[in-house]
Formats: sequence, structure tokens, C-alpha cells
Amino acid sequence: MSQLSHISAKGEAVMVDVSDKSETTRMAKAQALIKINQQTVASLVAGEHHKGDVFACARIAGIQAAKKTSDLIPLCHPLMLSKVTIDLSLDEAAGEIKVLSTVKLKGQTGVEMEALTAASVAALTIYDMCKAVQKDIVISELKLLEKHGGKSGEFIANEGDKC
Amino acid sequence: MSQLSHISAKGEAVMVDVSDKSETTRMAKAQALIKINQQTVASLVAGEHHKGDVFACARIAGIQAAKKTSDLIPLCHPLMLSKVTIDLSLDEAAGEIKVLSTVKLKGQTGVEMEALTAASVAALTIYDMCKAVQKDIVISELKLLEKHGGKSGEFIANEGDKC
Amino acid sequence: MSQLSHISAKGEAVMVDVSDKSETTRMAKAQALIKINQQTVASLVAGEHHKGDVFACARIAGIQAAKKTSDLIPLCHPLMLSKVTIDLSLDEAAGEIKVLSTVKLKGQTGVEMEALTAASVAALTIYDMCKAVQKDIVISELKLLEKHGGKSGEFIANEGDKC
Amino acid sequence: MSQLSHISAKGEAVMVDVSDKSETTRMAKAQALIKINQQTVASLVAGEHHKGDVFACARIAGIQAAKKTSDLIPLCHPLMLSKVTIDLSLDEAAGEIKVLSTVKLKGQTGVEMEALTAASVAALTIYDMCKAVQKDIVISELKLLEKHGGKSGEFIANEGDKC
Amino acid sequence: MSQLSHISAKGEAVMVDVSDKSETTRMAKAQALIKINQQTVASLVAGEHHKGDVFACARIAGIQAAKKTSDLIPLCHPLMLSKVTIDLSLDEAAGEIKVLSTVKLKGQTGVEMEALTAASVAALTIYDMCKAVQKDIVISELKLLEKHGGKSGEFIANEGDKC
Amino acid sequence: MSQLSHISAKGEAVMVDVSDKSETTRMAKAQALIKINQQTVASLVAGEHHKGDVFACARIAGIQAAKKTSDLIPLCHPLMLSKVTIDLSLDEAAGEIKVLSTVKLKGQTGVEMEALTAASVAALTIYDMCKAVQKDIVISELKLLEKHGGKSGEFIANEGDKC
Repeated sequence: MSQLSHISAKGEAVMVDVSDKSETTRMAKAQALIKINQQTVASLVAGEHHKGDVFACARIAGIQAAKKTSDLIPLCHPLMLSKVTIDLSLDEAAGEIKVLSTVKLKGQTGVEMEALTAASVAALTIYDMCKAVQKDIVISELKLLEKHGGKSGEFIANEGDKC
Repeated sequence: MSQLSHISAKGEAVMVDVSDKSETTRMAKAQALIKINQQTVASLVAGEHHKGDVFACARIAGIQAAKKTSDLIPLCHPLMLSKVTIDLSLDEAAGEIKVLSTVKLKGQTGVEMEALTAASVAALTIYDMCKAVQKDIVISELKLLEKHGGKSGEFIANEGDKC
Repeated sequence: MSQLSHISAKGEAVMVDVSDKSETTRMAKAQALIKINQQTVASLVAGEHHKGDVFACARIAGIQAAKKTSDLIPLCHPLMLSKVTIDLSLDEAAGEIKVLSTVKLKGQTGVEMEALTAASVAALTIYDMCKAVQKDIVISELKLLEKHGGKSGEFIANEGDKC
Repeated sequence: MSQLSHISAKGEAVMVDVSDKSETTRMAKAQALIKINQQTVASLVAGEHHKGDVFACARIAGIQAAKKTSDLIPLCHPLMLSKVTIDLSLDEAAGEIKVLSTVKLKGQTGVEMEALTAASVAALTIYDMCKAVQKDIVISELKLLEKHGGKSGEFIANEGDKC
Repeated sequence: MSQLSHISAKGEAVMVDVSDKSETTRMAKAQALIKINQQTVASLVAGEHHKGDVFACARIAGIQAAKKTSDLIPLCHPLMLSKVTIDLSLDEAAGEIKVLSTVKLKGQTGVEMEALTAASVAALTIYDMCKAVQKDIVISELKLLEKHGGKSGEFIANEGDKC
Repeated sequence: MSQLSHISAKGEAVMVDVSDKSETTRMAKAQALIKINQQTVASLVAGEHHKGDVFACARIAGIQAAKKTSDLIPLCHPLMLSKVTIDLSLDEAAGEIKVLSTVKLKGQTGVEMEALTAASVAALTIYDMCKAVQKDIVISELKLLEKHGGKSGEFIANEGDKC
């Protein structure tokens, strides 16, 4: 096995053997930021209900995407996720929507990719609904915030991004 | 219909009617950037073949994700994509991998979301394979670069990011 | 071919040949009714936002299910749906939620099954969210309301259920 | 958490945390009824083999749908179903097909939605195959018949519908 | 572009551009053979109904697999198949089941892979149902029998395997 | 229950009850052979990178197919695979590519179908990439090589095909 996950000594992609890893409770949080202009902010807050359906749609898309991670990321193991939540917050002044995903599992591998996939798809769903208003939306800072459980232990991002 | 795509006058999410839109050839390019440290760069270039399989895996994941867009982004229409390519380039000095996706279609709606989804999933696939080496990888600048065809016409991002 | 759709002269299931059918604009509306008790009604209306997220979730589930019809109903053709909407209305006094789905397509086969699948899954999604409050919810009157386009022409249900 | 499943205190849809629920053997039975006219009955029984392939197709569609439940109903957890059966019976005189689904699992959440989804899709599959003969077929009485296992305990519908 | 389909001049996998190919009616037939011993033959013919449900299940699995081809074979384009049939025949004396798939499309690319995928999955489904009786079943001669339509024209296998 | 897996005493397809089977570590190996002519061999080895991307694509397609087995083969149980690898080797002189799949699981049912599905789809992916060069490629000898774990115990194919 090379240093890289999922690459064998022969340099070939594999879905690695986790049969002997112990089942522990694992959790991961990830985020994505969506940068929007003031016209898009105005469209979102015009009619509270609009933001309601846009955000509800993104939450559901993110939750469903977490469940599809092993179908999207080729070398991820299928997992029986025990919790997925998506929290969305709009900073009107900054023109920024923060997507925060939380995923839990009692199982043999971590759920970092599930949290990142959920945050990414929730962000893309908001992008999709706002793209008629603004064509140059940017999604950035898609990253892991925290990770608990498993052999490699804790990880907490050190940039004050923890929520 | 509100200003927002996919939101009806009642503020409810809908998959909008494109029955009467004309079929034109449409194209979109999108990008994502993956910020990695020098240890991860070294892992990728150690053994040319490693980068080969990592990048091959990401290309395929991106192509397959483009085809799954209407399943991931709830209000996207199912589309018969006629071309998908993923180009990956590693800037060793900068510690940056650029993912560039190109999607084409002869059809009734644009393919921006397909290009963005492909770039996003290709980037997450590389993240997945490198995460054992580096836990604080960041994906950023996920955005549309170009869009051609359809009623709303051309869009070219103005930041010199065009490839 | 027998009288039954999808059954060959040998009595075997087939996905029938529609290659030579003409492309026309087709539309179908379907409905489902969810019978709930007053406690469930109260839970739904307590906090307008609750109904918001429950109904938003059901709308999206219904829209996504319409797109999955050919994967769920084995002999349905894959179709490029051009519109899907789900309308939900709660009759508090009667203890009844009406799900109304509308699907459009420019293509070679009708979209009745897509409308029915959308209504069914939207109803099941509401059932899922209410089942902690009430265990004997019943979904009934899942049926086609209208159908337009294609060789077999118009169909309008004659029971005053048209919306 | 509100009274409604899957809705947080903030009124937002979540996939709730079942990490700490104990693994027990769970079972659910659900039903759906399909109301057909005598012409459709005649088509089904003309040639025993026809009913064979129609019913075989519906059984398989129902079994496969049970496995897709967490993809269809947004807030359902992915589950490793350990048994799914679909039983179909035609009451020729009454013009009624009864779909009975049974689902088992050793796991952390119940399988009511899996049983209901299986019954619903099996019924829609029969509808699809009969719709050329009869356009006003109605699916009704889609409901839970029994539920065993888990914290909330037993549920048996009290209307004599138990099979 | 190299001689190989789907490989660019740089040697990288791509989903090639078919935007400018003309829409023609295309058809492909493929086959698979399943070699079984006399005990398995006896199990299949004991009770005509058994063969009925085994074969019905395989037909439906093959039809559904044809529709999933672009999800399974990474560089295949999504296609709107207009016909899929699976024909199964048991040669009791030879201990051989022949699977014959036929797929049609009016579109821009051929349907060879759809026919081959359908035949393969139908054969695997029969394997699955017989594997408790016989552990050394072999699937062989999975190949294209005929192909019509498109720029590359006709192909008919020359070994007398045409049905 | 008949002798056939998945067929009830009534002769009907069921997803059998495995609730009471014990969880053991299970493993299966399967193979497929792809017969190609010397022109196709030449195309594959011309430019080592070509074979690299063709083989990388097939490995990933096989791994992803293993995870989709319960969606493809109707009566297979959903399983949490803990390892999947695809090994490919080209015998240039013989004009033969051997696909070898290995699947592991700690669970209640065997993984033979997962290994066979993975080998089959990996072989079809190579077929897809070579079909522009050669139209009469044949996939053969798709079979189980080894099986360990579970009540029915060991199976090793006796033909010297073990790798």
C-alpha cells in the first residue's frame, strides 16, 4: 500500500479491506461557503418563504447526497449512516451562505467523505436555484471541520471555522 | 415565478417547464481547485503510475457524476449529455490541482450544473485518495468558467481563469 | 401482443417498441389522498414552518421520484421529463392532505406512470414524517386525473376530482 | 425535536440520529389494494401465464423498491434488509388485487416505510401493465398492517385487514 | 483520439462528443450462454411455474440493466432506449440456457453495450437463483450478435449464432 | 422453499430471510476472460498509458458494480462490502485479458454474486473501450473461483483457474 488511500503497492485503485477494523461511533463535520452578490441576497430574503423552500431543498439534497457517497466517490465503502443534518446560514451583509454538514455512523470507516459530499451537493443545489439571478457565484472553502472516532483519532480544523 | 430558478409564484420548489424551449447545442465549462501541501504533492508524483491511477479515478468519477446530476440536484432536468471530459493538472510548486470539466448537450436546458457537479465530484475523489496523507485539504473556487448556447446566451468568467 | 401493456404474445414481459411513435407533447396529472387524524393535523399546523419543511420535503421527493420512474417500474421507458410539479393542500377539517402531481414531456410515450409515482412517493414522504404521531395513516385514491397527448388521446377522470 | 419525525426544534428536516438505538429484529407488513373492472380481470386471467408474468414482474419491482426506500423517501436511513416478500392475490368477483408486503431487518430503525414503498411500487407496476385495458384504475388502502420490534413496540391494524 | 474508443490523444478516458452525429434508428442483439448440469436442469423444470418465475425475474433484471448501462459502463452515453426484450431458452439435453437480448433506440450512438449489459445481468440473475443447487455454473459466449444503424453500419456475427 | 434459491414453495420469487444467519467473514473470487485479436492487443499496448487508463477505468467500473449488485440482481440482499479489488492481466500472445475480482464482507450472506457482477462489468468496460477496433470480442469463462465463509463452507473451482 502506498501512502495514498485506496492505491495498492502496484499503484492500482482498490477499495481497501476494512473487514478487521473495529466498529466505533464516528462523526464528521464539513462545510462549504457560497459567495453571492447583493441582488441574490435580496432575491433570497424577498418573501421569507422563498428562502424557506430554497434552504429546505438544499437540506434534503445534502442529506440524500450523503447517502449516495459510495456511489459517487468510487473507492468509498457503502455505509449505514445513522445521522445526517445540514445547517444553512445566510450572512446578508457579507453575501455568504455557510453550509454545515454533520454525519454520524457506528461502523468500520470514517464519514469524512459523506460530510464533504453532503456539503458540496447542498451548496450546488443553492447555486442551481440562484443561477438565474447571478452567473458568477463561487463555492469555496469546502473542507473538513471536525472528525471523531476511528483509529486515526480526532481532527479539528484550526482556523476558527468550527461552529 | 420569482426571480429564483425553480421557485414558483407561491414560493414552492418546482421542476420548471422547458417543453417549449428550443433544442440548441449547449456547452459549459467549470472548475474546482484542490489545495494540497508538499507532502501530498510528493505522494502523488512518487511513482508516475500513482498519479495515473488517482487522476484516472477522478476523471471517471467526474464523468459519471455529470450523468447523475438530475438525481443529485433535485430540480435539474434529466438530460442526454453528448460529451463529458475532465482535465486535471497539478501545479507542484503551488500545491494546487486544477479540475476542469467540459459538458455538451443538444437539448432544451443548459448544462452548467452538470459541469459543476462533475468538477466537484472529481475534486472530492482526489480528496478521498489523499486524505490519509493530509487532513486539511481544501477545495475552492468551484465555479462556472464558460457557458454557450440557449436563450440567456454566452457567459465567460472574467478573472483569467479560462483555460 | 396481448391486451395487457408490456406482455408479448408469448405472455412474457417486454419493454415495448416505441421507436416509431411520433414525438408529441404529453401531460398527465395524478393524485393521492392522505387520511390523517386531528392530532396529526395539529402537529402539522403547529408552527407554520413545520408544515413548510414537511411539505417542501414531500414536493422534492415527489419531483425526484418522477425522474426515477423507469428505474422503479420495470417496463417503463426512460424519459426526459420537461416539467414536474407537486401541489399539496391540507383540508384541516376533513383531516386530509391532497397530493396533486403534474408531469410534462415532449416524447414518444405518455407520462401517466411518472405522475402516479410522483404522487405516491410524495404521499409516502408525508406519511414518513407523521408516523411518529399517528400509526394508522392511510393513503388512498391514488389515481390518474388527466392525460393529454399521444395516440390514445385525452382522458379526464369523471368524478369531480379534477383540480 | 417536534412531535413530527425528522423535524428538528428549528422546524428543519433532518435524518435523525439513531446511533444509540439498539439493534433488534424488526418486521413490518403493509398492503395496497388495486381496484380493477371485469375487463381487466378477464385480461389478467386469460392465459394463466399472463397473470404469471404480470405478478412476477410486480413481485420483483416491489422487492427492488424496498431496497431503494432510503433513496426515495429523503429522511429514511439506509438499511440492510434481511427479507422482503410480496404476496399478490386476485379477487376476481370483487375486481380487486391485494398486494401484501413483508419486510424484516435486524437493525436500529423500523421498516414500515420499506414495507409501504414495496407495496406501493408493486401496485404501480400492476397498474402500468393494465393501463392499456383500463384508464381509471384506483390504488387505495395503502397502509401499515403490522409492525414488530423496536422501542415503540407492536402495532396491529384493527380493521380485520391482517392476512 | 487513439484507435480505442473513449481514449483521448493524451491517453485519457473521456465520454466522447456525439453532438454532431445524426439521429438514426439503431438496434443491437447480444447473447450469453449459461452452462448448467442435469441436477440444475431438473430443478428448473420441476414445476413449470419455477422456470416461469426464474425466467420472468431474469427477463426483468435484463431489461432494467439495459436502462442502467450508462451508470455501469463509465464512458457510455445516457440513452433513451425505445425497446428492450430478453428471450430465454433452455436446452435441457445440452444443459444450456441461451439469453438473447434485443435493444432499439432512435439516437446518436449505438446500443451494443446496452444489449451486452442486459444479456450479462439476465444471465447473472439466473446464476443467482441456481447457485444453491450448483456452484460451478459458467457463463460464456457473451458477445454481440448483430448491430444495425449508425455510421459504422451493419455487423452480423458469422458463427451461426444468429437467432 | 424449492431447491432453487429465492423461489418459495409457491414457486414465487422472494428475497429470502437471512435474519437468523450468523455474521461471518466471507470472501469470494470470480473471473472473466476477454478474447481479443492481435490488432486490439496492439492498440492496448501502444502507449503504456493507454492500457493504464483503459485498465484503471475497468477497475473502477468493476468496484462500483460490486456495490450495485443488490440493485442489479433482484433477489440479492443489500450488503456492506468491506473490500473489493479488480486485477487485470493481458496475455499478449494468447490475445486474452483475465479479469479477477475479489470481494470481502463481514455479514450474513455470501458475496459470490458481487464478485461475479464486478468481473462482468469490468470485462464489459474493456469491451466498450476496444469495440471500435474489434467488433467480435467475446467474454467467456465468467465463473466463481473461490468462496469462503458461511454455512455452505468452502468452494474452490477445480480447473487450475485459481490465481
